[in-house]
Amino acid sequence: MERLEQRILQDGVVRPGQVLKVDSFLNHQMDIPFLCEIGQEFFRLFRDSGVTKIVTVEASGIGIACLTAQYFHVPVVFAKKSKTLNISGDVYSTEVMSYTHGRTYTVIISKSFLSAGDKVLLIDDFLANGCAMLGLIDLARQAGAEVVGAGIVIEKGFQRGGELIRQAGVRLESLAVIESMEDDGRITFRH
Amino acid sequence: MERLEQRILQDGVVRPGQVLKVDSFLNHQMDIPFLCEIGQEFFRLFRDSGVTKIVTVEASGIGIACLTAQYFHVPVVFAKKSKTLNISGDVYSTEVMSYTHGRTYTVIISKSFLSAGDKVLLIDDFLANGCAMLGLIDLARQAGAEVVGAGIVIEKGFQRGGELIRQAGVRLESLAVIESMEDDGRITFRH
Repeated sequence: MERLEQRILQDGVVRPGQVLKVDSFLNHQMDIPFLCEIGQEFFRLFRDSGVTKIVTVEASGIGIACLTAQYFHVPVVFAKKSKTLNISGDVYSTEVMSYTHGRTYTVIISKSFLSAGDKVLLIDDFLANGCAMLGLIDLARQAGAEVVGAGIVIEKGFQRGGELIRQAGVRLESLAVIESMEDDGRITFRH
Repeated sequence: MERLEQRILQDGVVRPGQVLKVDSFLNHQMDIPFLCEIGQEFFRLFRDSGVTKIVTVEASGIGIACLTAQYFHVPVVFAKKSKTLNISGDVYSTEVMSYTHGRTYTVIISKSFLSAGDKVLLIDDFLANGCAMLGLIDLARQAGAEVVGAGIVIEKGFQRGGELIRQAGVRLESLAVIESMEDDGRITFRH
Protein backbone atom coordinates (compact mmCIF):
# COMPACT_ATOMS: atom_id res chain seq x y z
CA MET A 1 0.00 0.00 0.00
CA GLU A 2 1.90 2.97 -1.32
CA ARG A 3 0.33 5.62 0.90
CA LEU A 4 1.29 3.56 3.94
CA GLU A 5 4.91 3.25 2.82
CA GLN A 6 5.04 7.01 2.26
CA ARG A 7 3.61 7.58 5.72
CA ILE A 8 6.17 5.26 7.33
CA LEU A 9 8.99 7.09 5.53
CA GLN A 10 7.55 10.45 6.56
CA ASP A 11 6.64 9.80 10.21
CA GLY A 12 8.34 6.55 11.26
CA VAL A 13 11.38 6.77 13.51
CA VAL A 14 14.02 4.03 13.52
CA ARG A 15 15.45 3.29 16.96
CA PRO A 16 18.48 1.13 17.75
CA GLY A 17 17.70 -2.60 17.86
CA GLN A 18 15.52 -2.62 14.72
CA VAL A 19 12.68 -0.80 16.48
CA LEU A 20 10.31 1.19 14.27
CA LYS A 21 8.25 3.78 16.10
CA VAL A 22 5.06 4.74 14.30
CA ASP A 23 3.18 5.90 17.36
CA SER A 24 2.28 9.25 15.81
CA PHE A 25 -0.28 7.63 13.48
CA LEU A 26 -0.66 3.87 14.14
CA ASN A 27 -0.56 3.30 17.89
CA HIS A 28 -0.65 5.60 20.90
CA GLN A 29 -1.87 8.35 18.54
CA MET A 30 -4.05 7.00 15.74
CA ASP A 31 -4.76 8.89 12.52
CA ILE A 32 -8.35 7.75 12.16
CA PRO A 33 -9.15 8.86 8.59
CA PHE A 34 -5.93 7.15 7.46
CA LEU A 35 -6.71 3.99 9.44
CA CYS A 36 -10.14 3.92 7.77
CA GLU A 37 -8.32 3.73 4.43
CA ILE A 38 -6.31 0.83 5.83
CA GLY A 39 -9.54 -0.86 6.90
CA GLN A 40 -10.96 -0.41 3.41
CA GLU A 41 -7.82 -1.99 1.95
CA PHE A 42 -8.23 -5.04 4.23
CA PHE A 43 -11.86 -5.20 3.08
CA ARG A 44 -10.78 -5.13 -0.58
CA LEU A 45 -8.33 -7.98 0.07
CA PHE A 46 -10.65 -10.22 2.11
CA ARG A 47 -14.16 -9.25 1.01
CA ASP A 48 -14.70 -12.57 -0.76
CA SER A 49 -13.48 -14.73 2.14
CA GLY A 50 -16.83 -14.97 3.93
CA VAL A 51 -15.44 -13.36 7.10
CA THR A 52 -17.84 -13.72 10.07
CA LYS A 53 -15.59 -12.32 12.82
CA ILE A 54 -12.46 -10.22 13.17
CA VAL A 55 -10.10 -11.24 15.97
CA THR A 56 -7.20 -9.25 17.41
CA VAL A 57 -5.29 -9.00 20.67
CA GLU A 58 -5.24 -6.06 23.07
CA ALA A 59 -4.28 -3.32 22.98
CA SER A 60 -2.87 -1.70 19.86
CA GLY A 61 -4.70 -3.91 17.35
CA ILE A 62 -8.17 -3.06 18.67
CA GLY A 63 -8.65 0.26 16.90
CA ILE A 64 -7.62 -1.02 13.48
CA ALA A 65 -9.71 -4.15 13.95
CA CYS A 66 -12.81 -2.08 14.76
CA LEU A 67 -12.35 0.37 11.89
CA THR A 68 -11.84 -2.59 9.52
CA ALA A 69 -14.80 -4.58 10.84
CA GLN A 70 -17.30 -1.86 9.99
CA TYR A 71 -16.72 -2.51 6.26
CA PHE A 72 -17.35 -6.24 6.77
CA HIS A 73 -20.34 -5.65 9.10
CA VAL A 74 -19.00 -8.28 11.50
CA PRO A 75 -18.13 -8.21 15.23
CA VAL A 76 -14.64 -7.85 16.64
CA VAL A 77 -13.39 -10.13 19.39
CA PHE A 78 -10.19 -9.10 21.12
CA ALA A 79 -8.13 -11.65 23.00
CA LYS A 80 -7.27 -10.51 26.50
CA LYS A 81 -3.93 -10.70 28.19
CA SER A 82 -4.66 -12.41 31.46
CA LYS A 83 -2.65 -11.79 34.60
CA THR A 84 -4.46 -14.46 36.58
CA LEU A 85 -3.05 -17.95 36.63
CA ASN A 86 -6.41 -19.59 37.28
CA ILE A 87 -8.01 -19.79 33.87
CA SER A 88 -11.59 -21.02 34.06
CA GLY A 89 -12.98 -23.66 31.75
CA ASP A 90 -15.12 -21.24 29.78
CA VAL A 91 -12.22 -19.68 27.86
CA TYR A 92 -9.78 -20.77 25.18
CA SER A 93 -6.25 -19.91 26.30
CA THR A 94 -2.76 -19.96 24.88
CA GLU A 95 0.71 -18.73 25.83
CA VAL A 96 2.30 -15.84 23.94
CA MET A 97 5.91 -14.72 24.37
CA SER A 98 6.33 -10.96 24.23
CA TYR A 99 9.88 -10.04 23.29
CA THR A 100 9.06 -6.36 23.81
CA HIS A 101 8.15 -6.96 27.45
CA GLY A 102 10.45 -9.95 28.00
CA ARG A 103 7.74 -12.16 29.44
CA THR A 104 5.07 -14.70 28.56
CA TYR A 105 1.39 -13.81 28.63
CA THR A 106 -1.61 -16.05 28.87
CA VAL A 107 -4.02 -14.85 26.21
CA ILE A 108 -7.69 -15.81 26.41
CA ILE A 109 -10.94 -15.63 24.47
CA SER A 110 -14.29 -16.58 25.98
CA LYS A 111 -15.73 -19.73 24.43
CA SER A 112 -18.98 -17.80 23.92
CA PHE A 113 -17.44 -15.64 21.22
CA LEU A 114 -15.68 -18.07 18.88
CA SER A 115 -17.21 -21.23 17.43
CA ALA A 116 -16.89 -23.85 14.76
CA GLY A 117 -18.44 -22.29 11.69
CA ASP A 118 -16.77 -18.92 12.28
CA LYS A 119 -14.55 -17.65 9.49
CA VAL A 120 -11.99 -15.54 11.25
CA LEU A 121 -9.89 -12.70 9.91
CA LEU A 122 -6.98 -11.86 12.22
CA ILE A 123 -5.90 -8.22 12.32
CA ASP A 124 -2.90 -6.61 14.00
CA ASP A 125 -0.77 -3.52 13.66
CA PHE A 126 2.63 -5.24 13.62
CA LEU A 127 4.07 -8.62 12.66
CA ALA A 128 7.62 -9.40 13.81
CA ASN A 129 8.37 -12.80 15.33
CA GLY A 130 4.75 -13.86 14.88
CA CYS A 131 4.11 -15.00 18.46
CA ALA A 132 0.90 -13.00 18.94
CA MET A 133 -0.54 -14.09 15.58
CA LEU A 134 0.34 -17.74 16.15
CA GLY A 135 -1.41 -17.48 19.51
CA LEU A 136 -4.56 -16.14 17.83
CA ILE A 137 -4.42 -18.92 15.22
CA ASP A 138 -4.17 -21.44 18.07
CA LEU A 139 -7.20 -19.92 19.85
CA ALA A 140 -9.28 -19.93 16.65
CA ARG A 141 -8.40 -23.54 15.92
CA GLN A 142 -9.20 -24.61 19.50
CA ALA A 143 -12.68 -23.23 18.77
CA GLY A 144 -12.86 -25.18 15.51
CA ALA A 145 -13.09 -21.89 13.59
CA GLU A 146 -11.51 -21.42 10.17
CA VAL A 147 -8.80 -18.75 9.88
CA VAL A 148 -9.40 -17.24 6.44
CA GLY A 149 -6.52 -14.81 6.70
CA ALA A 150 -4.28 -12.47 8.64
CA GLY A 151 -4.18 -8.75 7.84
CA ILE A 152 -1.13 -6.90 9.11
CA VAL A 153 -0.40 -3.21 8.77
CA ILE A 154 3.40 -3.41 9.02
CA GLU A 155 5.43 -6.61 8.71
CA LYS A 156 9.09 -6.73 9.64
CA GLY A 157 10.12 -8.91 6.71
CA PHE A 158 13.53 -9.61 8.23
CA GLN A 159 11.95 -11.46 11.16
CA ARG A 160 10.37 -14.89 11.07
CA GLY A 161 6.69 -14.09 11.66
CA GLY A 162 5.60 -14.00 8.03
CA GLU A 163 7.20 -17.36 7.26
CA LEU A 164 5.70 -18.99 10.36
CA ILE A 165 2.18 -17.80 9.58
CA ARG A 166 2.36 -19.04 5.98
CA GLN A 167 3.72 -22.37 7.28
CA ALA A 168 0.64 -22.54 9.50
CA GLY A 169 -1.40 -22.49 6.30
CA VAL A 170 -2.82 -18.99 6.77
CA ARG A 171 -3.12 -16.44 3.96
CA LEU A 172 -1.09 -13.42 5.06
CA GLU A 173 -1.60 -9.92 3.68
CA SER A 174 0.78 -7.26 5.03
CA LEU A 175 0.12 -3.75 3.75
CA ALA A 176 3.78 -2.80 4.11
CA VAL A 177 6.71 -5.20 4.43
CA ILE A 178 9.99 -3.78 5.68
CA GLU A 179 12.97 -5.44 4.06
CA SER A 180 15.56 -3.66 6.17
CA MET A 181 16.09 -0.77 8.55
CA GLU A 182 19.42 0.95 9.08
CA ASP A 183 20.49 2.76 12.24
CA ASP A 184 20.80 5.95 10.19
CA GLY A 185 17.02 5.78 9.69
CA ARG A 186 16.98 4.37 6.15
CA ILE A 187 14.04 2.02 5.51
CA THR A 188 13.74 -0.32 2.52
CA PHE A 189 10.45 -2.02 1.61
CA ARG A 190 9.91 -5.41 0.00
CA HIS A 191 7.73 -5.43 -3.13
CA MET B 1 -30.13 6.24 24.30
CA GLU B 2 -33.07 3.88 24.20
CA ARG B 3 -31.55 1.27 21.91
CA LEU B 4 -28.61 0.99 24.30
CA GLU B 5 -30.87 0.48 27.32
CA GLN B 6 -32.76 -2.22 25.41
CA ARG B 7 -29.49 -3.91 24.52
CA ILE B 8 -28.30 -3.84 28.14
CA LEU B 9 -31.59 -5.39 29.28
CA GLN B 10 -31.39 -8.00 26.54
CA ASP B 11 -27.71 -9.02 26.73
CA GLY B 12 -26.31 -7.64 29.99
CA VAL B 13 -25.70 -10.06 32.84
CA VAL B 14 -25.72 -8.89 36.47
CA ARG B 15 -23.12 -10.58 38.64
CA PRO B 16 -22.87 -10.39 42.43
CA GLY B 17 -21.10 -7.27 43.69
CA GLN B 18 -22.87 -4.85 41.32
CA VAL B 19 -20.93 -6.13 38.32
CA LEU B 20 -22.58 -5.71 34.91
CA LYS B 21 -21.17 -7.91 32.17
CA VAL B 22 -21.77 -6.56 28.67
CA ASP B 23 -18.89 -8.34 27.04
CA SER B 24 -21.06 -9.85 24.31
CA PHE B 25 -21.42 -6.46 22.57
CA LEU B 26 -19.35 -3.73 24.27
CA ASN B 27 -16.02 -5.22 25.29
CA HIS B 28 -14.29 -8.52 24.58
CA GLN B 29 -16.80 -9.02 21.75
CA MET B 30 -17.79 -5.74 20.09
CA ASP B 31 -20.92 -5.33 17.97
CA ILE B 32 -19.39 -2.95 15.47
CA PRO B 33 -22.50 -1.70 13.59
CA PHE B 34 -24.09 -0.97 16.98
CA LEU B 35 -20.95 0.77 18.28
CA CYS B 36 -20.97 2.92 15.12
CA GLU B 37 -24.45 4.10 16.18
CA ILE B 38 -23.00 4.93 19.58
CA GLY B 39 -20.21 6.88 17.91
CA GLN B 40 -22.77 8.82 15.87
CA GLU B 41 -24.66 9.65 19.07
CA PHE B 42 -21.48 11.03 20.67
CA PHE B 43 -20.95 13.05 17.49
CA ARG B 44 -24.48 14.46 17.71
CA LEU B 45 -23.86 15.46 21.34
CA PHE B 46 -20.40 17.02 20.89
CA ARG B 47 -20.31 18.10 17.23
CA ASP B 48 -20.36 21.80 18.15
CA SER B 49 -17.62 21.56 20.80
CA GLY B 50 -14.69 22.06 18.42
CA VAL B 51 -13.16 18.68 19.32
CA THR B 52 -9.58 18.33 18.00
CA LYS B 53 -8.68 15.03 19.66
CA ILE B 54 -10.38 12.06 21.30
CA VAL B 55 -8.57 10.58 24.30
CA THR B 56 -9.22 7.24 25.99
CA VAL B 57 -7.31 4.70 28.04
CA GLU B 58 -6.38 1.17 27.01
CA ALA B 59 -7.82 -1.28 26.41
CA SER B 60 -11.62 -1.48 26.22
CA GLY B 61 -12.20 2.19 25.37
CA ILE B 62 -10.04 2.13 22.25
CA GLY B 63 -12.54 0.60 19.84
CA ILE B 64 -15.37 2.96 20.77
CA ALA B 65 -13.02 5.94 20.67
CA CYS B 66 -11.85 5.03 17.14
CA LEU B 67 -15.35 4.40 15.79
CA THR B 68 -16.47 7.73 17.31
CA ALA B 69 -13.47 9.70 16.05
CA GLN B 70 -14.20 8.93 12.42
CA TYR B 71 -17.32 11.12 12.59
CA PHE B 72 -15.28 14.00 14.04
CA HIS B 73 -12.37 13.44 11.62
CA VAL B 74 -9.90 13.78 14.51
CA PRO B 75 -7.13 11.52 15.85
CA VAL B 76 -7.45 9.25 18.87
CA VAL B 77 -4.78 9.17 21.56
CA PHE B 78 -4.97 6.34 24.04
CA ALA B 79 -3.27 6.62 27.41
CA LYS B 80 -1.06 3.63 28.17
CA LYS B 81 -0.89 1.69 31.38
CA SER B 82 2.79 1.64 32.21
CA LYS B 83 4.41 -1.16 34.15
CA THR B 84 7.76 0.59 34.31
CA LEU B 85 8.52 2.78 37.28
CA ASN B 86 10.97 4.95 35.38
CA ILE B 87 8.80 7.43 33.54
CA SER B 88 10.82 9.58 31.19
CA GLY B 89 10.39 13.32 30.94
CA ASP B 90 8.71 13.21 27.56
CA VAL B 91 5.37 11.91 28.88
CA TYR B 92 2.55 13.23 31.04
CA SER B 93 1.79 10.70 33.76
CA THR B 94 -0.77 10.19 36.49
CA GLU B 95 -1.79 7.47 38.94
CA VAL B 96 -5.06 5.59 38.50
CA MET B 97 -6.53 3.20 41.06
CA SER B 98 -8.20 0.18 39.47
CA TYR B 99 -10.74 -1.37 41.84
CA THR B 100 -11.31 -4.21 39.36
CA HIS B 101 -7.67 -5.25 39.52
CA GLY B 102 -7.01 -4.03 43.07
CA ARG B 103 -3.93 -2.04 42.17
CA THR B 104 -2.68 1.34 41.05
CA TYR B 105 -1.48 1.96 37.51
CA THR B 106 0.70 4.69 36.16
CA VAL B 107 -1.03 5.99 33.05
CA ILE B 108 0.94 7.96 30.48
CA ILE B 109 0.53 10.00 27.32
CA SER B 110 3.47 11.19 25.24
CA LYS B 111 3.88 14.96 25.36
CA SER B 112 4.03 14.90 21.53
CA PHE B 113 0.36 14.02 21.27
CA LEU B 114 -1.44 16.46 23.58
CA SER B 115 -0.90 20.21 23.62
CA ALA B 116 -2.32 23.50 24.76
CA GLY B 117 -4.85 24.41 22.11
CA ASP B 118 -6.25 20.87 21.92
CA LYS B 119 -9.93 20.50 22.67
CA VAL B 120 -10.23 17.03 24.06
CA LEU B 121 -13.23 14.72 24.16
CA LEU B 122 -12.74 11.83 26.59
CA ILE B 123 -14.42 8.54 25.67
CA ASP B 124 -14.76 5.34 27.68
CA ASP B 125 -17.02 2.32 27.83
CA PHE B 126 -17.77 2.45 31.58
CA LEU B 127 -17.91 5.04 34.34
CA ALA B 128 -18.06 3.77 37.91
CA ASN B 129 -15.85 5.38 40.55
CA GLY B 130 -14.40 7.77 37.96
CA CYS B 131 -10.71 7.07 38.62
CA ALA B 132 -9.77 6.44 35.00
CA MET B 133 -11.63 9.52 33.74
CA LEU B 134 -10.17 11.77 36.44
CA GLY B 135 -6.74 10.48 35.42
CA LEU B 136 -7.39 11.43 31.80
CA ILE B 137 -8.65 14.88 32.86
CA ASP B 138 -5.43 15.31 34.84
CA LEU B 139 -3.28 14.33 31.83
CA ALA B 140 -5.15 16.71 29.52
CA ARG B 141 -4.81 19.58 31.98
CA GLN B 142 -1.09 18.89 32.46
CA ALA B 143 -0.82 19.44 28.70
CA GLY B 144 -2.78 22.69 28.96
CA ALA B 145 -5.50 21.19 26.77
CA GLU B 146 -9.18 21.97 27.27
CA VAL B 147 -11.47 19.06 28.15
CA VAL B 148 -14.69 19.84 26.27
CA GLY B 149 -16.50 16.76 27.51
CA ALA B 150 -16.60 13.14 28.55
CA GLY B 151 -18.66 10.61 26.61
CA ILE B 152 -19.48 7.40 28.46
CA VAL B 153 -21.40 4.44 27.14
CA ILE B 154 -22.63 3.07 30.50
CA GLU B 155 -22.51 5.00 33.78
CA LYS B 156 -23.12 3.27 37.09
CA GLY B 157 -25.20 6.08 38.55
CA PHE B 158 -25.01 4.62 42.04
CA GLN B 159 -21.23 5.15 42.17
CA ARG B 160 -19.44 8.46 42.56
CA GLY B 161 -17.79 8.87 39.16
CA GLY B 162 -20.45 11.04 37.55
CA GLU B 163 -20.51 13.46 40.46
CA LEU B 164 -16.71 13.72 40.57
CA ILE B 165 -16.42 14.48 36.87
CA ARG B 166 -19.07 17.19 37.02
CA GLN B 167 -17.30 18.63 40.09
CA ALA B 168 -14.14 18.77 37.98
CA GLY B 169 -16.06 21.10 35.66
CA VAL B 170 -16.38 18.65 32.78
CA ARG B 171 -19.56 18.19 30.74
CA LEU B 172 -20.54 14.53 31.10
CA GLU B 173 -22.77 12.68 28.65
CA SER B 174 -23.54 9.07 29.55
CA LEU B 175 -25.64 7.22 26.99
CA ALA B 176 -27.14 4.96 29.65
CA VAL B 177 -27.14 5.61 33.40
CA ILE B 178 -27.89 2.66 35.65
CA GLU B 179 -29.84 3.70 38.75
CA SER B 180 -29.74 0.28 40.39
CA MET B 181 -28.98 -3.38 39.77
CA GLU B 182 -30.49 -6.19 41.80
CA ASP B 183 -28.91 -9.58 42.36
CA ASP B 184 -31.92 -11.16 40.63
CA GLY B 185 -30.78 -9.41 37.44
CA ARG B 186 -33.23 -6.50 37.51
CA ILE B 187 -31.76 -3.25 36.10
CA THR B 188 -33.30 0.20 36.50
CA PHE B 189 -32.16 3.18 34.44
CA ARG B 190 -32.07 6.85 35.43
CA HIS B 191 -33.84 9.24 33.04
